Amino acid sequence: MPDSKTLPVIFNPLRIADINSPDDLKNLSIPELESIAEQCRKEVINLVSMNGGHFASSLGVVELTVALHHVYNTPQDKIIWDVGHQAYVHKILTGRLNRMHTNRQYGGLAGFPKVSESPHDAFGTGHASTSISAAAGIAAARDLVGGKEKVIAVIGDGSMTGGMAFEAMNHLGDLKSDVLVILNDNQMAISPSTGGLRNHFVNISLNKTYNKLRKLIWQSVSLFNNDLGNTAKNALHKIEDGIKAALTPGAFFEALGLRYFGPIDGHDMEQLVKALKEMHDLPHPKLLHIMTTKGKGFKPAEEDQSKWHAHSGGFDTVTGKTLKKADKTLPPKYQEVFGEALVELARKDIRITAITAAMPTGTSLDLFQNAFPKRFYDVGIAEPHGVTFAAGLAIQGMKPVCAIYSTFLQRAYDQIIHDVAQQKLHVVFAIDRAGLVGEDGPTHHGSFDLSYLQVVPGMVIMAPSDEQELRDMLYTALYNVNGPVAIRYPRGNGTGIPLNREFSALEIGKGRFVREGESIALLCMGTMTGKGLETAEALAQSGINPSVVDMRFLKPLDTNILEEIASRSTHIVVLEENSCIGGLGSAVIDHLNELGLKLPVLKLGLPDAFVTHGHMDDLYRDTGLDTPSLTEKIKRFYKPEGK
Amino acid sequence: MPDSKTLPVIFNPLRIADINSPDDLKNLSIPELESIAEQCRKEVINLVSMNGGHFASSLGVVELTVALHHVYNTPQDKIIWDVGHQAYVHKILTGRLNRMHTNRQYGGLAGFPKVSESPHDAFGTGHASTSISAAAGIAAARDLVGGKEKVIAVIGDGSMTGGMAFEAMNHLGDLKSDVLVILNDNQMAISPSTGGLRNHFVNISLNKTYNKLRKLIWQSVSLFNNDLGNTAKNALHKIEDGIKAALTPGAFFEALGLRYFGPIDGHDMEQLVKALKEMHDLPHPKLLHIMTTKGKGFKPAEEDQSKWHAHSGGFDTVTGKTLKKADKTLPPKYQEVFGEALVELARKDIRITAITAAMPTGTSLDLFQNAFPKRFYDVGIAEPHGVTFAAGLAIQGMKPVCAIYSTFLQRAYDQIIHDVAQQKLHVVFAIDRAGLVGEDGPTHHGSFDLSYLQVVPGMVIMAPSDEQELRDMLYTALYNVNGPVAIRYPRGNGTGIPLNREFSALEIGKGRFVREGESIALLCMGTMTGKGLETAEALAQSGINPSVVDMRFLKPLDTNILEEIASRSTHIVVLEENSCIGGLGSAVIDHLNELGLKLPVLKLGLPDAFVTHGHMDDLYRDTGLDTPSLTEKIKRFYKPEGK
Repeated sequence: MPDSKTLPVIFNPLRIADINSPDDLKNLSIPELESIAEQCRKEVINLVSMNGGHFASSLGVVELTVALHHVYNTPQDKIIWDVGHQAYVHKILTGRLNRMHTNRQYGGLAGFPKVSESPHDAFGTGHASTSISAAAGIAAARDLVGGKEKVIAVIGDGSMTGGMAFEAMNHLGDLKSDVLVILNDNQMAISPSTGGLRNHFVNISLNKTYNKLRKLIWQSVSLFNNDLGNTAKNALHKIEDGIKAALTPGAFFEALGLRYFGPIDGHDMEQLVKALKEMHDLPHPKLLHIMTTKGKGFKPAEEDQSKWHAHSGGFDTVTGKTLKKADKTLPPKYQEVFGEALVELARKDIRITAITAAMPTGTSLDLFQNAFPKRFYDVGIAEPHGVTFAAGLAIQGMKPVCAIYSTFLQRAYDQIIHDVAQQKLHVVFAIDRAGLVGEDGPTHHGSFDLSYLQVVPGMVIMAPSDEQELRDMLYTALYNVNGPVAIRYPRGNGTGIPLNREFSALEIGKGRFVREGESIALLCMGTMTGKGLETAEALAQSGINPSVVDMRFLKPLDTNILEEIASRSTHIVVLEENSCIGGLGSAVIDHLNELGLKLPVLKLGLPDAFVTHGHMDDLYRDTGLDTPSLTEKIKRFYKPEGK
Repeated sequence: MPDSKTLPVIFNPLRIADINSPDDLKNLSIPELESIAEQCRKEVINLVSMNGGHFASSLGVVELTVALHHVYNTPQDKIIWDVGHQAYVHKILTGRLNRMHTNRQYGGLAGFPKVSESPHDAFGTGHASTSISAAAGIAAARDLVGGKEKVIAVIGDGSMTGGMAFEAMNHLGDLKSDVLVILNDNQMAISPSTGGLRNHFVNISLNKTYNKLRKLIWQSVSLFNNDLGNTAKNALHKIEDGIKAALTPGAFFEALGLRYFGPIDGHDMEQLVKALKEMHDLPHPKLLHIMTTKGKGFKPAEEDQSKWHAHSGGFDTVTGKTLKKADKTLPPKYQEVFGEALVELARKDIRITAITAAMPTGTSLDLFQNAFPKRFYDVGIAEPHGVTFAAGLAIQGMKPVCAIYSTFLQRAYDQIIHDVAQQKLHVVFAIDRAGLVGEDGPTHHGSFDLSYLQVVPGMVIMAPSDEQELRDMLYTALYNVNGPVAIRYPRGNGTGIPLNREFSALEIGKGRFVREGESIALLCMGTMTGKGLETAEALAQSGINPSVVDMRFLKPLDTNILEEIASRSTHIVVLEENSCIGGLGSAVIDHLNELGLKLPVLKLGLPDAFVTHGHMDDLYRDTGLDTPSLTEKIKRFYKPEGK
């Protein structure tokens, strides 16, 4: 990595290694800014080609980021990056260039803005559609104390489909506070963004028509000029504004009380700087609409933006060709097994419908989308609506499957309770990315779903221990449950177990022994079953011989198997990749108490804390969920009778 | 009550008692429909004057409801009433007139639409902003099977501020499905609705201008007619649409892909029927904007709509004067104590800010609003935004207090986790209506907050046992916590304890004995402390002498007091007005297990089910949380040593 301290500034163009802070951008000319932008772009391509990371989004906002840091003064001014995976250039320009190679790695930079990482990160992000709310709050605080700092929210068109963004703009229009919202319109969120609003935005070509016709109207109306009173003239001005607002994409935002500017080319530095400077001192809420290309400057990404949304690294920086060979020996991912199983089942049942909140690829619902486009619904980044939409489908007898990541399902918690569970509607929640997710870190770990779902009345909750069980659980959820039902499964690859063509229904609320042992039992949820078996083998070498149970169901809990275990064990260990509060461990301890059984229970789950980002191996070690830690803890816990 | 079976239909106007189902409205003339509407209005006034209930909303949609049931055919056609407290007339007209006197009573009709109550209730509601999502799902199901039924969502302007409604319209614009959204614009949700969109709506007077000027423009442009090609003519038509959309309140909805109609007078039966009939066969998503007056036809309600949003009954049906005397001996409500305490504290601390999601009166934040209008934020029915907005305030050093009902806070679960807790921001959640709420029933009970908050890392969670403790907890939350903190307190009146002028800080994570006893301890959360004391006294009469502990904190749990109790007790009982899953009971059992202590614990909380509506006494009895049931259960549980 270039080291900014050893490189003398002796030639033009200025090198990004010389940009120690945004201050160094303030006096640059447009060509110099353009040069910096181009270098940032190359840096991002190099970084992601080596280490992986989010990609296309950052390439799309290179010019915007440089222009923002040229015109505004962070950290006094506050820039909030919605979602935040587009903030690599922001990190590069705010003193983190020489740490960018640690991006998303354990102990390294986070893949998202993080207030603890830099004063230039005004608000941490990760989930979509929060930026305008945060900006409004920051601006309101400023207004109360008479501060002068500027507040900017940068939000993509995909995030704009989230209801929170709308709520925030509606409130902002009412607050009348000085906030600049930059709509980064790449006509493509993670997947092509959906919704009526998108169709509205694409009509910007009407702009030229508008300009021509406005002239024409005013020319013709001028013939009547002498006949028009002041009221009518004022009204005409309003009409002109109205025409503008209606024919540009601004109508929507103007209706909410944000003054609308644009659209302008988000890769044109001169236009960007000019617009930002012109808008700098406007005291009210306003929105600048910029058009950008996701993946800009890297041809393979421009051509297939979904594919290049994020990359695991190891590609040619010009052609995009993968340099490391794909490991074909890897088992299929859980998400793929889910997506394929759903397609198989949907072939025989037209009632099966599928809902994603802007994650068709991430959930592998794209397979379903291709097979059954009419039964597939991408609702946009709109989990609350998605869940109640599913409730609407279910109440008419459809079998909706909502595939939503664990962490994002938190967005629809009330809809699960109020619209689905309360009406006992048969909605299947396919909860992907449950448990730790690795490099995306604390904003994306699925650490809480077992806890927040367990309290929902009537909810059936399962977790598969391998991909065959995932198939069977999906089948069971669709055909042996008649109410809300959740299957939580992890990010990443399955176990490689051979898959049966046929589906089997599992008995509701029934676990199974996967290892018979003595006097100590490991009760496992989902993929911790595999870890439980490994741990049991490790313990066996120390003369401890545990039973291992794949519980399969958190709710209803298998109380029979629990009684059986209690009758022949002295110690129980619970393994789950979920917070240690309110998950399987709590359920087991609660039930033993209810039975009046006094076995000691060791709960091994995620800590009551936010888990950092990094490689899964690091995170498992960190949280004590790696096999050596598990083995060690269980050894300490287990004191066999008479020894 | 009139009995429809015994009244012969011998004279005009038709009486509502003769309307056995909406079929009986189909062939009526406009004057007959008007007469039915007027009778419905009187019926609603009579009903609420006797039994209480939601009031002003139903009066506002009398004509709309009659017109809808005249034009559409439920239950084949589906009408979804957003929130649902305006559905009394719908209930009257769908065969429930003679049960309306049981409205909101235990075992009687629900105060909201409920699918289990009538086939005419297409989707259960209670929380705001769900109707368009449900309608879109129902319509999507219809489209898949080639059904012909019509789907209508009736939503108020207040509910329109909820992000879910926006998400649903955006998706609907994309689905292009036949759904009619009726925007019932009474310019007043529960409180005056806020937001830029509202300001936009009020400009409907521009309509006349639009009509005049459109004519003028076309006249003048027509002079150029021969010079204009087809492209220009098409463009002119687009401009005309644009002007219309921009100058009427339709711009916003047209941008989302809904065709906009209106605004029309929502109390004019002829206009309503005409509009509904004209729009009936349009195959795409559309919105009819009607203007109504909340409380229409009952003068006191028209004049003070907030006050008459709901009423507890017992007023004169003409003057609105209260007939039963107010019981001045009642202690203040918890919400009032909260509202007043916050004002007192805010007098000395300009950092204290307050946020409500359209509930200034319900939360008593109206006191704060009056005292400190600049530091008060009503964000609309927009809990997700409200919480992240608070996070923005907090990150700038303000001390935001979010007062949100327990059941509605479910809407902002992800924002609590992702935006507040993850950044350890000092946001105070004042969680009103925690526990059972009575007549509003299952959609409104606060049954889950202890469970869903306990798993949130770093969250401090308290519950006061009386109104003095509420004051002190608010003080403690503001000055002795530096991160997310929640205080949950119930609907209704306090205990009447004399209030100290001064505030005292409570020690974080520390409970207190309120009764010293022997060998059995009742650990209580919040207002269950009072019940615990009553129960202890009842038990004392049977020779059982329990200690009673006001735990004060769920998190951090008072592990010292727990150890002390364990050292001198044989039995522990936990009392909480929260689901028995994942609350204080689970926390206590978990911790005893961790300590290796084997005391039996009896958890007494809400069942793992949705609790019905009715008087609190009925609900406590039903859930076994009344003192006699508690006493009985504890007696059975407790077997004193040696007896």
